[in-house]
Amino acid sequence: MKTRVVSGLLMLPLLVLIAIGGEVINLMCFLIALIGVREFYNAFKHKDVKPSMTIASVCVFLLFIVPGHIAAYTQRAGDSFAFIVMWVMLVMILSMLYMFNIKERKLEDGIVTAFGLIYVAFFAYHVVLLDTLSRQIFHSDLFSFHIAGHAYSIVGPYSIVWLVIFCAFGTDVFAYFTGYLFGKHKLCKTISPKKTVEGAVGGVIGATVLCSAYAYIFMREYIVYVVIMAVAGSIFSQLGDLSASIFKRKLEIKDYGDLIPGHGGVLDRFDSVLFAAPFMYYLAYILW
Amino acid sequence: MKTRVVSGLLMLPLLVLIAIGGEVINLMCFLIALIGVREFYNAFKHKDVKPSMTIASVCVFLLFIVPGHIAAYTQRAGDSFAFIVMWVMLVMILSMLYMFNIKERKLEDGIVTAFGLIYVAFFAYHVVLLDTLSRQIFHSDLFSFHIAGHAYSIVGPYSIVWLVIFCAFGTDVFAYFTGYLFGKHKLCKTISPKKTVEGAVGGVIGATVLCSAYAYIFMREYIVYVVIMAVAGSIFSQLGDLSASIFKRKLEIKDYGDLIPGHGGVLDRFDSVLFAAPFMYYLAYILW
Repeated sequence: MKTRVVSGLLMLPLLVLIAIGGEVINLMCFLIALIGVREFYNAFKHKDVKPSMTIASVCVFLLFIVPGHIAAYTQRAGDSFAFIVMWVMLVMILSMLYMFNIKERKLEDGIVTAFGLIYVAFFAYHVVLLDTLSRQIFHSDLFSFHIAGHAYSIVGPYSIVWLVIFCAFGTDVFAYFTGYLFGKHKLCKTISPKKTVEGAVGGVIGATVLCSAYAYIFMREYIVYVVIMAVAGSIFSQLGDLSASIFKRKLEIKDYGDLIPGHGGVLDRFDSVLFAAPFMYYLAYILW
Repeated sequence: MKTRVVSGLLMLPLLVLIAIGGEVINLMCFLIALIGVREFYNAFKHKDVKPSMTIASVCVFLLFIVPGHIAAYTQRAGDSFAFIVMWVMLVMILSMLYMFNIKERKLEDGIVTAFGLIYVAFFAYHVVLLDTLSRQIFHSDLFSFHIAGHAYSIVGPYSIVWLVIFCAFGTDVFAYFTGYLFGKHKLCKTISPKKTVEGAVGGVIGATVLCSAYAYIFMREYIVYVVIMAVAGSIFSQLGDLSASIFKRKLEIKDYGDLIPGHGGVLDRFDSVLFAAPFMYYLAYILW
């Protein structure tokens, strides 16, 4: 528990990266996606499934580098989305070409290559999309400045990515304590035996209160949107957590990795963000 | 061989649907996607993998119904693409929720659910996207008319979907005959023992000539684009064909189904279209 708290605290400076946003958050998510995909693939290794990390590296690189630059070159709105759709096709086709070495490869090798990429990298990419969307919504609130003739702007507190973080980690913490204090009814014994219904509800309420308080200070005009997003985001955080548990249980591993002492791998720490971010992004995209 | 030719000819009237386009081609692709996904899932059955046809039906329905209607309601360009990206996320999340019944479901059940949907339905949907794109490119060439006060327009010969069909089936026929006449060097013995390098090259040349001739008559101004698309489309047709063969070989089945006498299932007949359509769509999207 102590290691867990210490390395949790050591991760706090990472939050500065969210406030900066832009290329910085893009780079951070790129790294998380790359390490996350690797952890996901490694988890399948002792089931004798060998997904392609080469295809994964190329695809993660393309996803995090290309769309951000497309907008600068074309005038057509929606071209970034068009690229993402194209990227999904690319992932699928490369994963199938991977099986062309039919003697050495199994179907699972290609299928897990594609699934892992879409689950980890594509889901993680929504954090970048949220940063971009926040820059459009809070356009007039950004902090802009010039360095050597180049214009930069940082999002500061005006980013929906903050809400994702509050949802994912807020849910975690509040669910833990409400579960500890009031937990009686098991949520789903077969997947995660310690989780309780009371904890799950407490997580949703806690995350919603946290997000609302934040919105009350920084984005009061949108507080209704934020409440909707927080409730949904918290539910999806918990589904993300449970989904990751299912994979781990079925693959007979305890953690995806050991990168963060006390927390396991990157995927163990960000499993709930992976589910919450896309869902909150589409909600934000529709609401605004 | 006779059955094959007869039922091939019986499918010819389907070509009229391409000339009509719009909702008609949408419906046709919806049915092909639905049957195709079902065939794909059934192929995994005797490997004791049980993907969810319920999730698949819901997702195929959403993919073919929603995006076409979004443009009418929102004014933001790119919203259809945004929905498709959202759809990919939905497919992934539903497939993972499917595994929540952890005692009865294996990881493969969920993973194959997602993979089959993206491979078959998402790829097939690009035929609809091509029809929509063609309507924008050849806007002034469409045949418009009114029925009971409603405006309709049909694409007639001015559709890139024709080029996909010529690529996919042209490649097939030309590869067969060039292979038969000149075939000496095996293309990839392990996947499809009868295919030859000469046949593959003949397929590309034949499909390109066919598409160019068509473009010379109907879309002469774009003939350079068409040649590029035909070469790429024909190569991807063959890759699509080989990919389907890999699945069938690994799953130890001869055909995906028996819906079309002499041709096998829908997937056996449209495997090359599935690969050619997305690739030709993105080429067209970028070129125009």
